[in-house]
Amino acid sequence: MPQVYVEDIAQHVGQEVTLKGWLYNKTDKGKLRFLLVRDGTGVLQAVVFQKNVSPEVFEATDTLTQESSLSVTGEIRPDDRALGGFEMDVTHLEVVQVAESYPITPKEHGTSFLMDNRHLWLRSSRQHQIMRIRSEIVKACRDFLDDRGFILADTPIITPAACEGTTTLFELDYFEEKAYLTQSGQLYNEAACMSVGKTYCFGPTFRAEKSKTRRHLMEFWMIEPEVAYAELDDIMELAEQYISYITQRVLEERKEELKTLERDTSWLEKVAPPFPRISYSEAFEILKEEGSETPSGSDFGGTDETLISKRFDRPVIVHRYPKAIKAFYMEPDPVDPELALCMDILAPEGYGEIVGGSQRIHDHDLLLARIQEHSLPVESFQWYLDLRKYGSVPHSGFGMGIERVVAWICGIEHVRETIAFPRMLHRMYP
Amino acid sequence: MPQVYVEDIAQHVGQEVTLKGWLYNKTDKGKLRFLLVRDGTGVLQAVVFQKNVSPEVFEATDTLTQESSLSVTGEIRPDDRALGGFEMDVTHLEVVQVAESYPITPKEHGTSFLMDNRHLWLRSSRQHQIMRIRSEIVKACRDFLDDRGFILADTPIITPAACEGTTTLFELDYFEEKAYLTQSGQLYNEAACMSVGKTYCFGPTFRAEKSKTRRHLMEFWMIEPEVAYAELDDIMELAEQYISYITQRVLEERKEELKTLERDTSWLEKVAPPFPRISYSEAFEILKEEGSETPSGSDFGGTDETLISKRFDRPVIVHRYPKAIKAFYMEPDPVDPELALCMDILAPEGYGEIVGGSQRIHDHDLLLARIQEHSLPVESFQWYLDLRKYGSVPHSGFGMGIERVVAWICGIEHVRETIAFPRMLHRMYP
Repeated sequence: MPQVYVEDIAQHVGQEVTLKGWLYNKTDKGKLRFLLVRDGTGVLQAVVFQKNVSPEVFEATDTLTQESSLSVTGEIRPDDRALGGFEMDVTHLEVVQVAESYPITPKEHGTSFLMDNRHLWLRSSRQHQIMRIRSEIVKACRDFLDDRGFILADTPIITPAACEGTTTLFELDYFEEKAYLTQSGQLYNEAACMSVGKTYCFGPTFRAEKSKTRRHLMEFWMIEPEVAYAELDDIMELAEQYISYITQRVLEERKEELKTLERDTSWLEKVAPPFPRISYSEAFEILKEEGSETPSGSDFGGTDETLISKRFDRPVIVHRYPKAIKAFYMEPDPVDPELALCMDILAPEGYGEIVGGSQRIHDHDLLLARIQEHSLPVESFQWYLDLRKYGSVPHSGFGMGIERVVAWICGIEHVRETIAFPRMLHRMYP
Repeated sequence: MPQVYVEDIAQHVGQEVTLKGWLYNKTDKGKLRFLLVRDGTGVLQAVVFQKNVSPEVFEATDTLTQESSLSVTGEIRPDDRALGGFEMDVTHLEVVQVAESYPITPKEHGTSFLMDNRHLWLRSSRQHQIMRIRSEIVKACRDFLDDRGFILADTPIITPAACEGTTTLFELDYFEEKAYLTQSGQLYNEAACMSVGKTYCFGPTFRAEKSKTRRHLMEFWMIEPEVAYAELDDIMELAEQYISYITQRVLEERKEELKTLERDTSWLEKVAPPFPRISYSEAFEILKEEGSETPSGSDFGGTDETLISKRFDRPVIVHRYPKAIKAFYMEPDPVDPELALCMDILAPEGYGEIVGGSQRIHDHDLLLARIQEHSLPVESFQWYLDLRKYGSVPHSGFGMGIERVVAWICGIEHVRETIAFPRMLHRMYP
């Protein structure tokens, strides 16, 4: 008898099928045993009625502990009282393994304990739903760009030079040369987009920052589109369409998961273009009104981002930061060259920055001067400078951190729950 | 006037549009200039007729060098003689930048020179087509699994322990702890599949091997599905459907690119299930017949793989290798416990191994014994052993190396051309 999955169970009403999974919960009622069986795609109630099974099978149900593995066979019938609307009348049951006493119980556990048991914690309903939503977000991210003719180019993880200084880089030995784990694929994207016009990379990026905040991981995934001939306004528009598309997709495809997470989806339903756009100086006015003591001209901290984003009912675009606090490669604003043609997008509800992007300098001499001002090794950037010699064009792009998007869409407090095995300060087990 | 792309040009016949790109080639003919303009999605012939443009514009065409960036405006009309079937009657042209003398010319260049200029080489027709095919292969890889209910779980890149020994690992310092770059997400996949039933990871993997072959990179991308309750036969079937799906997709969606690469697609058209399946010992018989001197019981080298795969017109599955030459986690064959329930898939035309997979040991004590036999640190594998205590189930999976699949499908000799910025022994620039 072939295995079926809970997510397809509606197609098997009236049929006898086999389900393979783990015991999620169990209740006894005289000659009845109600087994909640999870198989990774959903949970089904399997009803064992003493007179329908052999005495051995009925006895076996009493040995089953939480997370024991088992297969159940029986007819599927609709039942309004059952979780998901269906249940199984069990005719046969096979115990694969009776689980040892499971460490994660319905009682409250500390975060440290749960993180030590991350390999098991992933099976908990909440973590399981987050994984399913993350998977959908990643798919939506790729589909949006693929459908619009972007060509994926996987940019390198091991890199010889740093995009923005070496202080927050993981260093490694590459056959007796110093190398670093990438913080962004952007520079390589710029080369690729001169070949394919519209490109993106989507891979792990790394930041060796000794910080412990709810918004940071040492290893996180970032998707970075880059478009030849695009200017700042073009990518602001692309980014707001992008975020709206992803949000809509999750609302459509992961409704049940959001419900289990008790996410207030009214916030997500409001996410549609156009997003409010404010300049850095307008954002700063808000901060002053809110009583922030962040000095003018400096970058926003997490609290500042929260103060700004709380003013809006959807993501807000903040553009044209002072060039002094931004990366070397950003095109200056022709109206005020002390400002950079850049933008960040802050998610609402206090989630803060999820996107950062800019128009890139396309003039060779200006870029060279910037590299020198930032004391970066010109030799390492020779290839990057080359892009400004051979048919240079205005171009722009942005990066979106997936963990922060997942945290925001799921409505969860800390990014550590947004990836299967988070890498944090002093934590790389399991 | 909004920018249009060459790939959408058929929708704009009879309209005046603007195209932005780079000069690919140019020919003069009296009062006519024929400009081949590439924009990353294709190449269009833009015809500049002296009487249709201002004298300045006509003169400007004579300044244009290879890879100069420009925008051209004009009406699109069908023309059977033109590349792609359309051309543009130019009414306006804007030079964005006249390129310096382009280092890559139609003459033959050495590989080392081309690799030094990889950031520019990517613009060449052949490299450009390979990038487009790789992007499609990656999409097909993900779609196949997503459509079948697999949940993506991005497994960690920075890991504390080694899957198969530390000799070929890149080591790094993780806040004063030793860490390594991952060689496979498999062990983590095994934890994830106990949560979601069917999972996969798809990310960069690393091997610090001092070898220079046409099949190896230091950094390569691998997709690894893992299925709870699946046994060896199940994943052999999954893998042959998978490879067939990917091949068909590229044949459908990247026909033009394959043609440009002069790929003999008759080989790809034959890729359909079932694939021939032979045991290790049957494969060894072939080697003996072919005069190979590889000693019995050892692993196959590249040449051996070529000899075996050349016997078949489609990918061939070789199963049940001696456990002594395989990884510690493989389930022994109940018929002959000296053999492992594993399989490799060898691509035809001498391309060799593209897939490796196995059923995993699900018995706790047997796995513990294997970890000890292989002198691996039990402490680091505690979480992995846990998976065998709490509802352990038979499970299986495989890994597929994307660069090798791209090389095979494109019909190219060396994997260095299959990724935008390859990381090779003594090469990490650009």
